[in-house]
Amino acid sequence: MASAAHRSLMLRALLVAAAIAGALSDPTPLQDICVADLQATTLLDGFACKPQTAVVDDDFFSRAIASAASTNNPFRVNSTRATVATFPGLNTLGVSITRVDLAPGGLNPPHSHPRASELVMVLKGEVMVGFTTGANRLFSKVVRENELFVVPRGLQHFQLNNGTGDAVFIAMFDAQSPGVVTPTFAMFSTKPAMPMEVLTKTFLMGEDEVTAMKSKFGF
Amino acid sequence: MASAAHRSLMLRALLVAAAIAGALSDPTPLQDICVADLQATTLLDGFACKPQTAVVDDDFFSRAIASAASTNNPFRVNSTRATVATFPGLNTLGVSITRVDLAPGGLNPPHSHPRASELVMVLKGEVMVGFTTGANRLFSKVVRENELFVVPRGLQHFQLNNGTGDAVFIAMFDAQSPGVVTPTFAMFSTKPAMPMEVLTKTFLMGEDEVTAMKSKFGF
Amino acid sequence: MASAAHRSLMLRALLVAAAIAGALSDPTPLQDICVADLQATTLLDGFACKPQTAVVDDDFFSRAIASAASTNNPFRVNSTRATVATFPGLNTLGVSITRVDLAPGGLNPPHSHPRASELVMVLKGEVMVGFTTGANRLFSKVVRENELFVVPRGLQHFQLNNGTGDAVFIAMFDAQSPGVVTPTFAMFSTKPAMPMEVLTKTFLMGEDEVTAMKSKFGF
Amino acid sequence: MASAAHRSLMLRALLVAAAIAGALSDPTPLQDICVADLQATTLLDGFACKPQTAVVDDDFFSRAIASAASTNNPFRVNSTRATVATFPGLNTLGVSITRVDLAPGGLNPPHSHPRASELVMVLKGEVMVGFTTGANRLFSKVVRENELFVVPRGLQHFQLNNGTGDAVFIAMFDAQSPGVVTPTFAMFSTKPAMPMEVLTKTFLMGEDEVTAMKSKFGF
Amino acid sequence: MASAAHRSLMLRALLVAAAIAGALSDPTPLQDICVADLQATTLLDGFACKPQTAVVDDDFFSRAIASAASTNNPFRVNSTRATVATFPGLNTLGVSITRVDLAPGGLNPPHSHPRASELVMVLKGEVMVGFTTGANRLFSKVVRENELFVVPRGLQHFQLNNGTGDAVFIAMFDAQSPGVVTPTFAMFSTKPAMPMEVLTKTFLMGEDEVTAMKSKFGF
Amino acid sequence: MASAAHRSLMLRALLVAAAIAGALSDPTPLQDICVADLQATTLLDGFACKPQTAVVDDDFFSRAIASAASTNNPFRVNSTRATVATFPGLNTLGVSITRVDLAPGGLNPPHSHPRASELVMVLKGEVMVGFTTGANRLFSKVVRENELFVVPRGLQHFQLNNGTGDAVFIAMFDAQSPGVVTPTFAMFSTKPAMPMEVLTKTFLMGEDEVTAMKSKFGF
Repeated sequence: MASAAHRSLMLRALLVAAAIAGALSDPTPLQDICVADLQATTLLDGFACKPQTAVVDDDFFSRAIASAASTNNPFRVNSTRATVATFPGLNTLGVSITRVDLAPGGLNPPHSHPRASELVMVLKGEVMVGFTTGANRLFSKVVRENELFVVPRGLQHFQLNNGTGDAVFIAMFDAQSPGVVTPTFAMFSTKPAMPMEVLTKTFLMGEDEVTAMKSKFGF
Repeated sequence: MASAAHRSLMLRALLVAAAIAGALSDPTPLQDICVADLQATTLLDGFACKPQTAVVDDDFFSRAIASAASTNNPFRVNSTRATVATFPGLNTLGVSITRVDLAPGGLNPPHSHPRASELVMVLKGEVMVGFTTGANRLFSKVVRENELFVVPRGLQHFQLNNGTGDAVFIAMFDAQSPGVVTPTFAMFSTKPAMPMEVLTKTFLMGEDEVTAMKSKFGF
Repeated sequence: MASAAHRSLMLRALLVAAAIAGALSDPTPLQDICVADLQATTLLDGFACKPQTAVVDDDFFSRAIASAASTNNPFRVNSTRATVATFPGLNTLGVSITRVDLAPGGLNPPHSHPRASELVMVLKGEVMVGFTTGANRLFSKVVRENELFVVPRGLQHFQLNNGTGDAVFIAMFDAQSPGVVTPTFAMFSTKPAMPMEVLTKTFLMGEDEVTAMKSKFGF
Repeated sequence: MASAAHRSLMLRALLVAAAIAGALSDPTPLQDICVADLQATTLLDGFACKPQTAVVDDDFFSRAIASAASTNNPFRVNSTRATVATFPGLNTLGVSITRVDLAPGGLNPPHSHPRASELVMVLKGEVMVGFTTGANRLFSKVVRENELFVVPRGLQHFQLNNGTGDAVFIAMFDAQSPGVVTPTFAMFSTKPAMPMEVLTKTFLMGEDEVTAMKSKFGF
Repeated sequence: MASAAHRSLMLRALLVAAAIAGALSDPTPLQDICVADLQATTLLDGFACKPQTAVVDDDFFSRAIASAASTNNPFRVNSTRATVATFPGLNTLGVSITRVDLAPGGLNPPHSHPRASELVMVLKGEVMVGFTTGANRLFSKVVRENELFVVPRGLQHFQLNNGTGDAVFIAMFDAQSPGVVTPTFAMFSTKPAMPMEVLTKTFLMGEDEVTAMKSKFGF
Repeated sequence: MASAAHRSLMLRALLVAAAIAGALSDPTPLQDICVADLQATTLLDGFACKPQTAVVDDDFFSRAIASAASTNNPFRVNSTRATVATFPGLNTLGVSITRVDLAPGGLNPPHSHPRASELVMVLKGEVMVGFTTGANRLFSKVVRENELFVVPRGLQHFQLNNGTGDAVFIAMFDAQSPGVVTPTFAMFSTKPAMPMEVLTKTFLMGEDEVTAMKSKFGF
């Protein structure tokens, strides 16, 4: 069984993974190719381009999501992202993809993407996918291999492995960097810490209850 | 003191208000004016236009946020929106505004807008405003009368009245209908209800704890 | 062996499939959901929305690409598209997906998408993917299971099964309807027919040579 | 009473203020935050980003419009702008705001914004706001405290204090830098001077009349 | 010599021409073709599409700017527009064009386009073209046959025939309906009339002077 | 008569011309002016801006398409482009223009523009213009002096001089760099060469036939 320290480590890894997406980009293509120059010192909203003469076939190719990642964490989930940070050919092209592995019973907890819609395709197993509208109406469906489910831009959604074996799905985005907001992390795991008054009032709870709830997030 | 039934009613009102924004729109202007025809039977992503000859001065004018609304609810907050549903002149123009009243200690709980950045201007009192990035970094500030704070598109943010009197601020959006996702409502107050398994796993809690937490939201 | 009539039939089927994508749409989301009303009599650049009360879970779900399609045609390829025409929940969300089955040696012939970049992920087998820039520089790569290759918006590209077994890949687009331009079809299989003078001058050939080349396309 | 030299000085100040907006920017957000690096030597359409580690709470906060500015000039108006030049957190977020102070009888003369719609909210006093369509139809309204009026993108509009005391309004824009075109300044106060032939023909006047009219603008 | 009544008539014609552009549209293409259905009863921001089966070659063809128009008016100019109102194939394609005829000494008076940049190409004669930035800097040039000059989006510009013969130029726009704001018309020729107080304060003139100036515009 | 070497040279020139467009750009204007700094070392999706103080009248002026170019090549066509590479004032303005000279019988071979619609205006002679939709429907028309024809974004089109004398037309684009894909060049003239297997399967031909066809393109 995972110790508290171990669990904390797992969560940290999860949070770092979540953070990467938010630090990337989604521009309009203005020329045929603008492969990201990941070493450029000028920081842009997106990335500067490599010189055309330095561009090679491999810039447009990626193995970033070819392997499963460990789901040994409290949520039993792992998101592996193919973003411009590892796949520079995506720069300015408005598309990206994430592979999500879910152990049996694993949950990709409720979250939203600030800059993209998401098209889910299940590759293995069965996954319940659901999203909530601004009117708090829940739309959900159990999705199986080669089936699709779409989540509108910016709305909160989750994916739950409700099959008996491992599950894998891909999430495709109409953005080079969809970003990610996971509300629980954005409340319980921030730096600096969220003021306690905000948390107690958000959950209509006392400080003790909030402290207990927050402690499960390892911080 | 508010009874449970009363509190539930208050929350329902709050949820309905939240829902309205999400049902509206944000197109590019393609002609000088396209005042929303709120009676049109053809439903669009946005609104059809009134005939040019039917457009009047009042279509571009609104008193929708001129009055304070009651903050007599568990969060001690009220959001009053000037959207195309009540202000048809906004149709296709890419701007809208919300007035938020906060009783002392009132909280506009963590939420995000799927389709807009938000520029906050405090009109009265003092308000702590904060947002969290995808990397779960918290940026916040106490904002006073005539001061500004900006929240990037789609990121989770809150506003807390930490002054001693009532507070009022306006939130301006670069969208005709910014939409709103309030994670707690989108988990505890959905129709149909969010599966219990999603909630217990999201909060790493037992069913009893979740049921207790959820009950505070009056459903 | 396929008769000429049979081959012609196959090509017609291929052309009809190609045509469907081009008749669909790619708007900006202006509200949380705008599920396509496929029966609407008002024709838009995109689709009108179903009434909110008529929207159901299944509108966001699709089995459109769940099954392989026959590759029994001269190119030994079949493209199966999940577009708003069969998957109304995609309306206004800016994403779509195509599944391509390739028999051994099968080719998805050079083509371009007028309104989208394309992110290729191979699900089975090995596929050579290549695109040409406006400067006629060719970038290509052999892509295997779970590997990715990206094609910039509007550029001409092909996919060739150069493995020994069947191959399957998915192509994801940042557009609800990426459209498709297959130059050979757009020259040899048009209605009305492309003027012969355009064809002879395009290929710097005589009429007999063009007629022979065109006849292979079954029209 | 203001001397001609004094009036000229006032107008110059007004023109400089007008010029600042036009030199700024309005991009699409491609990542969570891209705070403007105002010292960057690479000049962009917009601004380069500060390194993420250098970003602080104060980057998202501004007191730029907290104070009234002098209305001691011929038009009895003063516009104070919160733009990315003084409020670097606005970079890439698509919103900005201007505070306008009007002495009794003061006029914000007819002008347009090349890159934004404008949502007016009166904070104090009463202000007649009007705009003209391309068909030269005038829509106008007297707007009072907490009331709203919207001006479509790019159309010519004015604001006149027709109350008995000072008036203050805010103008919110769906652009980081809406820009401003004030036709009279853009004809009478340009560097180099507008050719006299253009002015006489624009106003269907003689040179003497134009010279007299232009002289009032202090140049 | 033109009587006052005649001149007024000419100006009215000019104003009607100016108005047409402002009543049209500029959407993003979401499908291959969406030819405007000019008879549709549902009014959109843009136009509904004709059924695909009703589309003909002539929908993409126009003679709208093939002929010169009379320059017999006070400004000795005539603008002939090819817009979606007469050229339905332009619908959703983001381009349009205007032909401007200028008699010797003729002026296309200072104006701006709310929704487009303008690329000028002179077909005949010589034309001084100039624009003013928000900082009131004037950039201008005498442009001759087959030469180009570009005017940034939304900025005020003019065209003056400073050759000895007739001049003709075309103005191309990155918008289906660029719209037009002619400040003098938008002040002196509005319906209802611009309040006199706005005009006197805009020009820092007395009522008599304004009345005389306005009378030249025939209203 | 042109030798094979000569023809090859001509084609190379044509290909280089085609390549230039594809290496340029199409951003949204975010400030009044952002004249391209063609010497900037930071490579962007588009171009960095010259310092405002270095901008001159000539930056907005161009003679790039003022002269006819030689049509002494196999297609008897020449395209002369006014792009930001030679006309830096176009940077961020979303418009560009190409002049095409066609000798009698000359053909601008089937091609598409990845990032723009095209509005054709014939200046001299008569030109058959046609485009093919994704459904392979051909729309075409003979266009004469001062007449217009529009080609939707990304679709394949051609222009053929079917008059008896020289013809000249201009093609206007809603993009700073529309890019160009000429399918025959993108198959027969690539670096590195397109794999023979792709070509034989694309044209349903044998290697000898493909080699003969390809040899006409001089490579």
